[in-house]
Amino acid sequence: MRVVLASQSPARLMTLRSAGIEPEVIVSGVDEDQITTTDAGNLAAALAQLKCRAVAAQVDADALVIGCDSVLAFEGEIFGKPGGPAEAAGRWRRMRGRSGVLHTGHCVRRGDREFIETASTVVHFAAVSDAEIDAYVATGEPLHVAGAFTIDGLGGAFISGIEGDHHNVVGLSLPLLRVLVGDLGIVWTDLWNRPS
Amino acid sequence: MRVVLASQSPARLMTLRSAGIEPEVIVSGVDEDQITTTDAGNLAAALAQLKCRAVAAQVDADALVIGCDSVLAFEGEIFGKPGGPAEAAGRWRRMRGRSGVLHTGHCVRRGDREFIETASTVVHFAAVSDAEIDAYVATGEPLHVAGAFTIDGLGGAFISGIEGDHHNVVGLSLPLLRVLVGDLGIVWTDLWNRPS
Repeated sequence: MRVVLASQSPARLMTLRSAGIEPEVIVSGVDEDQITTTDAGNLAAALAQLKCRAVAAQVDADALVIGCDSVLAFEGEIFGKPGGPAEAAGRWRRMRGRSGVLHTGHCVRRGDREFIETASTVVHFAAVSDAEIDAYVATGEPLHVAGAFTIDGLGGAFISGIEGDHHNVVGLSLPLLRVLVGDLGIVWTDLWNRPS
Repeated sequence: MRVVLASQSPARLMTLRSAGIEPEVIVSGVDEDQITTTDAGNLAAALAQLKCRAVAAQVDADALVIGCDSVLAFEGEIFGKPGGPAEAAGRWRRMRGRSGVLHTGHCVRRGDREFIETASTVVHFAAVSDAEIDAYVATGEPLHVAGAFTIDGLGGAFISGIEGDHHNVVGLSLPLLRVLVGDLGIVWTDLWNRPS
């Protein structure tokens, strides 16, 4: 089966690969600003659907298309990618020792059948020092990701724990995707197309 | 600083690498059967200490040595690596839809100073089908790991969620290691010795 990931995120691609699935990648190029909801979970779902539909329109009806989008909700605010080093450092000084919720919207589509769901994972940030924040921001890693942290990179040591699915924090929940493709009548293990 | 990982686990090595640390690997070769405690957390800590001390005896006193050991506690039993495909499949039929606790013991040592702590993460197993279990076991992946599952590999889709640190489930808790090396007076970000 043709599996298409409608995302340019290297983390999502790596997540699928680690789970035995080598997808084709097609970037949707949609204008994300057209979604204006202020609810984090709904925003992530709407953006995932937008990406998924844009790519599904470009491929044959037999292909499985997967769209995702992630946002961090922190104390009533929605954090996407930070605007620069100062904003990333400022967020970390607020987040350290506290918790946020990482929402990832998932949309799967095959032909005219579609399922959408958001998975939400609580993320506990460690009480890192100012020096650690500055060193982390200086690497550039937190500048390119929603919420300004990477649980699967240098930031892994700065997340004290989570409640929920780790892969959802990275950007694509494997257990949720398994359920959603099951709703489409696809057996998860039939998607394995690469050596582990 | 010389950083030595006293473990032959590829997953632990990859975890440190993903977090910016390229360690030297020295396998202890200790006899794990000499530890006989039946408490899962104590067992993991004792084995981690055994590995760490065996390797520390081989290196100069300025080196930082890290030893780890992981076991899964499930309904009063301790699950190490499964004995073969039948045992792996049998465990999964018991574990699916239920929860276990993955304990990883961590021992850090530099010269004659040593700190030991076990991190424990609750793991929720998805309600996978018999066919999924058979396909998973057939890949061979669950045969080589404590608890017969890999959250960072094909098994990622079969873990519905966790409570605690994901890296601890993989085999080495980065946030706990950060705290333990801090107890030794080492700043975590000073250990970064490889490009992210």
